[in-house]
Amino acid sequence: MAEDMTTPLLSDSEAPADADAPSVCLTSPTVAILGSGDFSRSLAVRLVASGVRVVVGSRCVNRLPSGLFPEAVELRNQEGAVSQGVCLVFMALFPEHYHSLMGLRSALAGKVLVDVSNAEEIKINGPSNAERLAELFPDSIVVKGFNTISTWELQTGAHDGSKQVLICSNSTEGKKKVVQLSRQMGFHPVDMGGLSSAREIEVAPLRLFPSWSGPVVVTFLLFLFFYGYGFLRGILLPFLAQGQNAFYRLAVDLVNESLPAVALVTLALVYFPGLFAAWLQLWRGTKYRRFPSWLDNWLQRRKQLGLLSFLCAALHGVYSLCRPLRRVTLLRLVNTAYRQVKAGTEEPWDELGVWRSELYLSCGVLGLGVLSLLAITSLPSVGNSLNWREFTFVQSSLGYIALTLSIMHTLFFGWDFAFHIEAYPFYMPPSYLLAVVLPCIVLVCRCFLLLPCIFTRLTRIRRGWESKRNCPVLQHHHVVANGIP
Amino acid sequence: MAEDMTTPLLSDSEAPADADAPSVCLTSPTVAILGSGDFSRSLAVRLVASGVRVVVGSRCVNRLPSGLFPEAVELRNQEGAVSQGVCLVFMALFPEHYHSLMGLRSALAGKVLVDVSNAEEIKINGPSNAERLAELFPDSIVVKGFNTISTWELQTGAHDGSKQVLICSNSTEGKKKVVQLSRQMGFHPVDMGGLSSAREIEVAPLRLFPSWSGPVVVTFLLFLFFYGYGFLRGILLPFLAQGQNAFYRLAVDLVNESLPAVALVTLALVYFPGLFAAWLQLWRGTKYRRFPSWLDNWLQRRKQLGLLSFLCAALHGVYSLCRPLRRVTLLRLVNTAYRQVKAGTEEPWDELGVWRSELYLSCGVLGLGVLSLLAITSLPSVGNSLNWREFTFVQSSLGYIALTLSIMHTLFFGWDFAFHIEAYPFYMPPSYLLAVVLPCIVLVCRCFLLLPCIFTRLTRIRRGWESKRNCPVLQHHHVVANGIP
Amino acid sequence: MAEDMTTPLLSDSEAPADADAPSVCLTSPTVAILGSGDFSRSLAVRLVASGVRVVVGSRCVNRLPSGLFPEAVELRNQEGAVSQGVCLVFMALFPEHYHSLMGLRSALAGKVLVDVSNAEEIKINGPSNAERLAELFPDSIVVKGFNTISTWELQTGAHDGSKQVLICSNSTEGKKKVVQLSRQMGFHPVDMGGLSSAREIEVAPLRLFPSWSGPVVVTFLLFLFFYGYGFLRGILLPFLAQGQNAFYRLAVDLVNESLPAVALVTLALVYFPGLFAAWLQLWRGTKYRRFPSWLDNWLQRRKQLGLLSFLCAALHGVYSLCRPLRRVTLLRLVNTAYRQVKAGTEEPWDELGVWRSELYLSCGVLGLGVLSLLAITSLPSVGNSLNWREFTFVQSSLGYIALTLSIMHTLFFGWDFAFHIEAYPFYMPPSYLLAVVLPCIVLVCRCFLLLPCIFTRLTRIRRGWESKRNCPVLQHHHVVANGIP
Repeated sequence: MAEDMTTPLLSDSEAPADADAPSVCLTSPTVAILGSGDFSRSLAVRLVASGVRVVVGSRCVNRLPSGLFPEAVELRNQEGAVSQGVCLVFMALFPEHYHSLMGLRSALAGKVLVDVSNAEEIKINGPSNAERLAELFPDSIVVKGFNTISTWELQTGAHDGSKQVLICSNSTEGKKKVVQLSRQMGFHPVDMGGLSSAREIEVAPLRLFPSWSGPVVVTFLLFLFFYGYGFLRGILLPFLAQGQNAFYRLAVDLVNESLPAVALVTLALVYFPGLFAAWLQLWRGTKYRRFPSWLDNWLQRRKQLGLLSFLCAALHGVYSLCRPLRRVTLLRLVNTAYRQVKAGTEEPWDELGVWRSELYLSCGVLGLGVLSLLAITSLPSVGNSLNWREFTFVQSSLGYIALTLSIMHTLFFGWDFAFHIEAYPFYMPPSYLLAVVLPCIVLVCRCFLLLPCIFTRLTRIRRGWESKRNCPVLQHHHVVANGIP
Repeated sequence: MAEDMTTPLLSDSEAPADADAPSVCLTSPTVAILGSGDFSRSLAVRLVASGVRVVVGSRCVNRLPSGLFPEAVELRNQEGAVSQGVCLVFMALFPEHYHSLMGLRSALAGKVLVDVSNAEEIKINGPSNAERLAELFPDSIVVKGFNTISTWELQTGAHDGSKQVLICSNSTEGKKKVVQLSRQMGFHPVDMGGLSSAREIEVAPLRLFPSWSGPVVVTFLLFLFFYGYGFLRGILLPFLAQGQNAFYRLAVDLVNESLPAVALVTLALVYFPGLFAAWLQLWRGTKYRRFPSWLDNWLQRRKQLGLLSFLCAALHGVYSLCRPLRRVTLLRLVNTAYRQVKAGTEEPWDELGVWRSELYLSCGVLGLGVLSLLAITSLPSVGNSLNWREFTFVQSSLGYIALTLSIMHTLFFGWDFAFHIEAYPFYMPPSYLLAVVLPCIVLVCRCFLLLPCIFTRLTRIRRGWESKRNCPVLQHHHVVANGIP
Repeated sequence: MAEDMTTPLLSDSEAPADADAPSVCLTSPTVAILGSGDFSRSLAVRLVASGVRVVVGSRCVNRLPSGLFPEAVELRNQEGAVSQGVCLVFMALFPEHYHSLMGLRSALAGKVLVDVSNAEEIKINGPSNAERLAELFPDSIVVKGFNTISTWELQTGAHDGSKQVLICSNSTEGKKKVVQLSRQMGFHPVDMGGLSSAREIEVAPLRLFPSWSGPVVVTFLLFLFFYGYGFLRGILLPFLAQGQNAFYRLAVDLVNESLPAVALVTLALVYFPGLFAAWLQLWRGTKYRRFPSWLDNWLQRRKQLGLLSFLCAALHGVYSLCRPLRRVTLLRLVNTAYRQVKAGTEEPWDELGVWRSELYLSCGVLGLGVLSLLAITSLPSVGNSLNWREFTFVQSSLGYIALTLSIMHTLFFGWDFAFHIEAYPFYMPPSYLLAVVLPCIVLVCRCFLLLPCIFTRLTRIRRGWESKRNCPVLQHHHVVANGIP
């Protein structure tokens, strides 16, 4: 990607100077599209809107319903479309039909063919579609690209997350043409190297939330663990030991016991890698050495982990609010009143119990409220409107406030039960006690990093200071700078 | 829209070559704006920020507060503004003042006048503002455009949904100039044809959620039906027959009975047209024939229907959670306890009732949770960051999961009551029984489409395969391709 | 910002014509970056992606890990980077290291130096970083800019809210070059004037939600007032007078009493300035005179006030839904049942009480629902997809519906208690009575503005009509226009 990449695609003047790619046709203002499917139509709409002249070549020109393509588009048969001084041809047909174009081989020679096809499956052997196209048309210049753009994006214009057009080719000249065209169409071309990268580009649109798979698996495993642990401790063992049938708790109670534990641990996992990275920077005395790749990956998944934590916390909130709607709550309530009457006394005021419930509800509501703010700022359009300091404030300060409130919610909920022997049936502690360990460690470590001596050192390192200055170039410069009047 | 559309607006070189539009002035770097209102000011800010020189012509230059326009803007009286080699003039005044500019008729001759006015009402007779302007200034070139852009968007830059500038004119040359300028300003010009389209463009900003009107009406009618049905079955007929006064149920109970029914039917209406389209494609054996327009419209309204279904479901959730806060719940609870005491026995454990309530609450919470995810991905900034496969996964797979959970929620709620005669007072089934019919049909049809033989055929059709190949051009190609070595 | 601003940065042709800035180097296609930190890396990535050739000059070229910069970037030592015909140099190092570059003074002479540094604190004395750079390198042209762009935005491309690049310099020529480059990189340059504005630009990234501080302070003070008032009226005075211990109410009850009051007053504050502005326009008979700045500020903070009102209302909703989960609710319920049994009668049907609770819950749920719609449309990506009329409809019509529903919610909640002497312990009215005053005033004033005579006049004024036409230029025009046949 060099300086004259900004020259408009359609200037004729640059071509003669092009010594290393003599086979590339003179750039012409017209672009051809072979195929008349959805992608072809959307591509034509977009190209016309970007001020490019378009010829569409179809197997069956006469059968196309009128109005399918914009008026400015010229419709021809396939041979007619590529014969008239066109230089760039989009191959908007399925790869299995490429061979049907062998008759156009000579007409396409020296032209740039853009392969816009996707792979059919993620795991596939053999050459990519673009490489097979290059084999079929050895005299043409094959460029892979535009497959990551959906027909919908083509029609409505490029948007935030999907502006990127991944491009690869063995011909610098061909790549340059496609880069220029995609820029003209309002996209953001990204050079992915030679045609051997085509497989990766073809597979990209098939990937399903690649950045979410790790966090989702972690969250799911945590849920399985807490659900299984709760089942063992609260349902199976009591059933085996005392024959208590509490299997009705599987549907709501146990889920609602596991969800907050998962939310708490996941939230701690959001802030753990940041602490680890800070510790590593302190230890190394520099920020210029790369983190190990597992830490890098973890750091990049914090947003997803945070959103999953919010999802679990929100579900926990809704499940909890559903409690009074449940038949079992009603039964218990009526029977409590019945027993009270039998006992012949009003239920006494329970100051401690009241305070405990008020406090853990408060912390829970506020913690979930703060988490909601965090979730809202992670919406692309909201997050993009924040400056760096605002983003840091929300994600770091508010995040730690949410973590602290969640821990307090758990501790107030647990109250002093952790010190009672009844809380440990079968020697198994309650799951919230297991869940609160990691968050507490994270919070303590964070407070440790706020100690003045450590904080100062970390700030200096993050501003570029290094503990051992062993860069001779800099030393030299300092000498020179001081030597000059 | 032809090849040299990418030439910058300000290049003088293209004008001489312009044979078919001799009356168009030589392009000059300066743009004039007549009028000094909000729109004029915002337009000036935007033009200056886009690197264009701007002259504003005002009726009363001397009374304009300083600082109203950016410094780079030249302020003149109206005659001064249009006399100095300006080629393109924005008419930023109300159409009823157009006639006050008759004195500038000769000065404006041959220039491009951009009419930026809106219609006052949607239903109006007579010519559009732009057509009246063209009558008043027959020697000028009138182009309609920019009225769909608000002053706010002009000042802050174009955004996702509102990047489009609809343009029409009888002069290709004039249209081309405005297209270039709007592109330079960061907008996305859309050619709407001749000046007779001006009415449609002028009315566009007056439309109030045009894509929502249909779905809102459908949802509202469904609500009316279920509310009326419930009123008849649960309140009016019992009152007339047995004199029971249950009118207090109008405010919350009946609403909360109708909302889930509406949500369920509307959600089924989201997935119904897709099934119908699939069936049509299977029947026709091709995807290249257009759907009937009612189906097309329905398919395009699925997002709105889905969001309205979510709105109803969420309201149903909140109303349900409010139940324990209601005075009537409290009264009933205390009286249940009272009667229990009178009867002298604890209320017996109701295993079936407990399971039923646990299950329908679980399905409800999870169904609403999945619907929330669907609603979040329909936010423009979130949806835009998904690739096509992710979007399909969320909208189709998650959608069917939500539908299944909602149906299960309803069935568990209904339990075996549908088989009791008491559920049919006045021979009227409960409304959830009516509501669950269509969703069940949709689910069964969907499962039918997943049968291997049908699924394979549909996939082939969607990839472009046609059952009867009657396209001679393609046949010919095949022959040629095979004939060439 | 003049006409040839659209010329690409890299065209050599414009330089000779440049008479007023002889010291500016001939524009060359290469841009240099001094420094190799995060910002340098991201800047290089972005520049390369925009088709610019980049040379990075580092103190310690040899120690840079490979792969840190894109392949297309040339890595040199600092002297090498600036010596090779480079014209524009980004100073991507901390300002305290500027003096280490004194040895490059002659090499940098006549070149454009872009200062991308931020201020360290908001309140700081002395010259800005850019001014100090200009002092150190008097023969270079210093331009301030790009500091508002984060490294993340540089890498991923510009987004909605953060597209703006604030630029200032004493050299028009230097500014023009940076403006062009930033436009080429996809940003939206904003000219902030001379280098004396650099301080303001350097401080911008440090500001924390500047548009939120006022509304947050107002909301917080309102909360403090209502919380303190409630504490005095409901807890402290009863404790002092009758020794009642109700301190447990501090955590949830009192918060949940204050939140709706704050939400209601804040919502009224959203619509109050609009009414005031309308009244001012009616009084003045024109819309062309500026509002006093406090009113202008208030009008611009309506969105924030509205969102804070929604936050309080939503929290109020969640706290209310939590009521049945509280230990104190349980205690009271059981004891009510107990007392009922002691009394020996079922609790009688309370028609009025039931209607009251049904109505205030309905209004509350619907009011919060409408407020949620308002909050959703204030998300940037949703709001941007609305046209002006839709935006006005949502923000104004739906807003007044939400206000009306909230007032009704409060009034139904209050019912006839306001007329009982027990509602005024210590002569203090309940807080919801205080909170409902301002919203009622707003609602009445709004209805007043809808009276036909006033509405017509206001509409005319807002369309540009003025009560006293004293603009001589216009009069003149009219005469001329009428004089010409």
